[in-house]
Order: sequence, then structure tokens, then C-alpha cells
Amino acid sequence: MTAAPPRRKARLPDLDTLADRVAAGERRALARAITLIESTRPEDRALSTALLQKLSGLKRQALRIGLSGTPGVGKSTFIEAFGIALIDAGLKVAVLAVDPSSTRTGGSILGDKTRMERLSRAPEAFIRPSPSLSHLGGVSRRTREAVALVEAAGFDVVLIETVGVGQSETMVAEMSDLFVLLLAPAGGDELQGVKRGIMETADLILVNKADGDLKSTATRTCADYAGALRLLRKRPEDPEGFPKALMVSAVTGLGLEQAWSEMQALAKWRQAEGHWDARRAAQARGWFEAEVRAGLLARLTEDTATRTAMDRLGADVAAGKLTASQAAENILETLGA
Amino acid sequence: MTAAPPRRKARLPDLDTLADRVAAGERRALARAITLIESTRPEDRALSTALLQKLSGLKRQALRIGLSGTPGVGKSTFIEAFGIALIDAGLKVAVLAVDPSSTRTGGSILGDKTRMERLSRAPEAFIRPSPSLSHLGGVSRRTREAVALVEAAGFDVVLIETVGVGQSETMVAEMSDLFVLLLAPAGGDELQGVKRGIMETADLILVNKADGDLKSTATRTCADYAGALRLLRKRPEDPEGFPKALMVSAVTGLGLEQAWSEMQALAKWRQAEGHWDARRAAQARGWFEAEVRAGLLARLTEDTATRTAMDRLGADVAAGKLTASQAAENILETLGA
Repeated sequence: MTAAPPRRKARLPDLDTLADRVAAGERRALARAITLIESTRPEDRALSTALLQKLSGLKRQALRIGLSGTPGVGKSTFIEAFGIALIDAGLKVAVLAVDPSSTRTGGSILGDKTRMERLSRAPEAFIRPSPSLSHLGGVSRRTREAVALVEAAGFDVVLIETVGVGQSETMVAEMSDLFVLLLAPAGGDELQGVKRGIMETADLILVNKADGDLKSTATRTCADYAGALRLLRKRPEDPEGFPKALMVSAVTGLGLEQAWSEMQALAKWRQAEGHWDARRAAQARGWFEAEVRAGLLARLTEDTATRTAMDRLGADVAAGKLTASQAAENILETLGA
Repeated sequence: MTAAPPRRKARLPDLDTLADRVAAGERRALARAITLIESTRPEDRALSTALLQKLSGLKRQALRIGLSGTPGVGKSTFIEAFGIALIDAGLKVAVLAVDPSSTRTGGSILGDKTRMERLSRAPEAFIRPSPSLSHLGGVSRRTREAVALVEAAGFDVVLIETVGVGQSETMVAEMSDLFVLLLAPAGGDELQGVKRGIMETADLILVNKADGDLKSTATRTCADYAGALRLLRKRPEDPEGFPKALMVSAVTGLGLEQAWSEMQALAKWRQAEGHWDARRAAQARGWFEAEVRAGLLARLTEDTATRTAMDRLGADVAAGKLTASQAAENILETLGA
């Protein structure tokens, strides 16, 4: 109580205490733990790794739902309505955001929690905006670790939301048990706006805004997507009838219950058939390999001697004194066998 | 003459002879040298590096023209007509193809040389199809090295052609002195089909098929692109009036001479202003860094002990015995500081 260095003590409880509080589902401790894993300071990284290792012993799992939707589809409103519905069903819900654009602006999709006013006030919910980091690999790692933390904290469902641009959709799909595409009602031409690769990743397509004037357009859009999904090759990890397209309305609540029961049905089938565990195992292995690659490449910039040698040889190559291959071999030799 | 192992001798002349023959512009030797650099066998890689290092002493430069055009714009016909025009102007022309899709099919854009019948028969021309390799990084490296070889062989112009899909356009732009976008006449709506990033990379936009029925559409398309180019931010490496949009016809020969004189004017200006050397230096440095990264990552798969350790730890992670971070740290430690 008196021997610990005061500065560290003021910032963070000791690791065992923090782990215990996260495990007890304390939202404040969870928020602190996520801040810790988002830190890029080497001493914080070591603590993060230890914390995650400790909590992994709990073996708690949440249903990880990836949710992609471009701006304008009413994603925040949907998450608010869907999250409240889950809470009403007795579940604890966490929402994590992945916004690749926030790496530039420093902002975040969920920075404005007022768009999810009820959900953000609910004690059964935990909402965390996107980390502002410089590259997608970093965002991916931090998000994966945040997912592991909210699972350890006993949440039943984690919604991992992203805007449907660039590679963030794929990244989110790769850390989810189920991947949901949220779309707005639109004419048939705009069907092509959904990337084929993403269509093939989706487990459930939800056409939002099926209310008021847009209801008939939503009905048609939903039928269009259902038709398009039937054209895709059947995947071994799908039971009969999946992937599916449904209509929902975040405003009237239409379809939210059905969406949830479809998600549960799909999750249960995959658990029973072994696809759930196989997918999680493959994902975990993929993350491990990605971390090894990132760690290896980090040596080129983190080690001063290597950086100096890279600069020197890079200048020689630029001046035409050495070929790129020759110079690369030189560096790789000094980086050791 | 008698001591060398006969198998290797039958396949390839010794390195000095090969280098001399490439330097003398012998097309057969050049083709062999390119086959050598395309080989993935470790002993061939060592020979390639030595050959490139030896030939780099010649300090010969060709004008490297990157050329992108989607199927249907008449790329082969354009290259045939443009290549013949350059030969008629007394120049030696090499054509290298980069086709990312050939990694799957094993085919290549230029596999059918009959589409460039005159050019492929001309002694002043050298045409080489895309290497069939498994990843873009490999294609990039082989193509860069093939460019270095044709430069050493004394060619004046190298056309590096690619289909405008995926990342191959960017790759080709990054190994060119000038980047040319070949487009077909089309309505204004299709303007959006050109990726903004590629528009910003182009030095010259050529609207092909400005003949017969399509002439008036081509005129309008060209004006549309000229307008679009004016909206882009001015780049320091461009003189007044560039990037430019021109009409050409590979069939009637319209605009081919003008296109070539614009390319020469741009190249000369960049040489005089120091942009040419700066760009080549930056490109060479970038390749060096890319090769170091690729070489470092190759260790994960090439070294048996590392591969075994990766498999073992990967299985532990998949089974939930270790977190991805913990396992990654283990491997990185054994890969040694």
C-alpha cells in the first residue's frame, strides 16, 4: 500500500485488482483496461499482454456481431433500438466502433454518444468509440483486445460496428461470429454498390428504414437482396435459408425481434455443428500470425542501429551505388540468421 | 570450358558472358536473363542479384512509360501502333506486361502476341508477357528487375502495361517515369469509373478510338477528362499544361505523334528540373525497403524451426491456451534481438 510508485498507482490499480474488477463487470475498470490496451507505450503493452492473458482464463464468450453500414443507413439509431431490445431481453450489450477515418480526424463515430442516448445511459450497456491510431493493423489489434476485455467483463453481446469503406469491413468480419450488413432502401441499380466480397461475407442483411414512405421501397430492396443472396454459392457454415435478408425499422421496432432470433438460431446451429469453434480458432491463429509479422517489421524502425543502416543503404540505392536486392540482402544479413 | 557442371552450362552461359550479351542488346540473351530473374530457386536468385548488380554499372536509362487500360480500350492495338511509330522514329522499344489475374490463370495479357503481329516481328522490339507468380509483391519485383534488364540492353523506351484493376495500376505507376491512362470514348457518367487515385497519378490521358463513328464521342470524352484534370491540385513535378488529355486512334494513327512529343516534352522538363532523378531515387529506395520487408517476412515460412514453432504456438492460440499477443512475443523472442 505504501511501497508502490505513487504515479503508476494514481493512474491504474495493480493488475490483479484491475483484472478482478473487469471480471466483476465494472464498467469503469473496463474503460480503464481498454485505455491501457490502446496505449502504445512499451510498459503499457507489457501490462496489456499480462492482463489479457490473465483474463483469458475465464473462458467467457459473448456473441460477437459485426455490423457494417455506410453513413445514412441509420446505423446509430439501429444500434440504439437493437441494443435496448437486447437489454429488455435481459442481456448485457457492448458496442465497439471501428472507424478507419478517425485515424485522420482524431474523431470517432461514437464520439457523439448523444445519438445513442438511451443506450449510453443504460447500466447494462457499454459503449466505446473507435481508437484513433495511425494504421489499420493497430486499430485491428486494439479492437480485438477490446472485444476480449468486454467478453471477460461478462457482456453477452458485442456489437462491433464499422462504416462500410475500405478494408475496415473485412477486418470487422474477421473478428465477428456473425456479420450483419445494414442497408438503406434503394433502387435496384444501387444493389451493385455493395461490394461482392462483402455480400459473400454477410450472414444477415438488414434493410433499415422499413417505415413510412420508404416501406414499399424497403420491401422491394429486401426482395432484391434476398434474390442476390440466393445466387451466391452455399457456404458450409450456413444452415438452410442463410444468409438471409430482412426488413427492419429502428423507428417502429419492426423486425428487430426477428433479426435477433435469426442471429440466435444461426449462432446455435454453428455452435452445434462445430463451425463456431472452428471459426474462432482460425481467427485467433490469424491474429497471432498477423502480430508476429507486425512485430518483425517493427524491428526495422524501432532499433536505432537498423534504422541507421536502412537509411545509409537506402541512400546508396537511391544514388545508384547498389541495387535494391543487393542492399536488401546486406540488411537482412545483419538482421541475423 | 570443361570443369563447369554440364547441366547448368547447358541452361545458361556464365554470368559475365550473359551480362555482356545483354549489354550488347541480344534479345535471346535478354529473354534468358529475364527467365533467370523470374526464377524463385535460391541459386537463381543469387545469380540474378549478381547479374543486376553487374549491369547496373552501365547506368543506362530508358524512358519508362507505365500504361494502364481496361480490357476493351484497344490496348494491344495501341501498343502495336505506338510501338511501330517509335521504331520508325529510330528507337528501340520493349513492352513488359503486368497482369495480376495471370497469377490465377497462368495465362498472360501478351501471351497472344498475334495481337501485336508487326511489333513482335520487329527486330527493334522486345515483348515479354507477364510473369505468372502467386503474389503482387513477387510480380512487382520481377517486373522491376525486367525493366532494369531491358534498360541495360539499350532499349530507349519501355512500355510497362497493365489492366486497370486492383493494385497493379499503382504498382506500375510506381515503377514508371511517366504514367499514361488509355481510355475508351464513353458517356460522362462513366467518368466516375476511373478511380480518383489513378486520375491523380496519370501524366497523360489518351482517349483511344477517335475514329469513325466514335470520333465525336471521343472528342467529348477527351474534353470531359481535360476538364476533370484541371480540377486536380497542381503537382510540383508538372510543367504548365500537364497532366493532359489527348485523342488518339490506334487505327488511323491520329494523335500518336503528338502523344509521343508530349511525353518527350514532359520527360525533358522533369529531367531539367531534377524531378526525374528525384523520382527514380525515391522509387529505388522504396523498392529496397519493400524487399527488406519481404525478406524479413520470408523467414517465417522458409526456416523450418520457425515454421514448426509458428505451427505449435498457432495451435495453442487456436485452442485458447495462449493469447495471440503472448504467443507472438514468444516467437519474436526466439527470432532474436
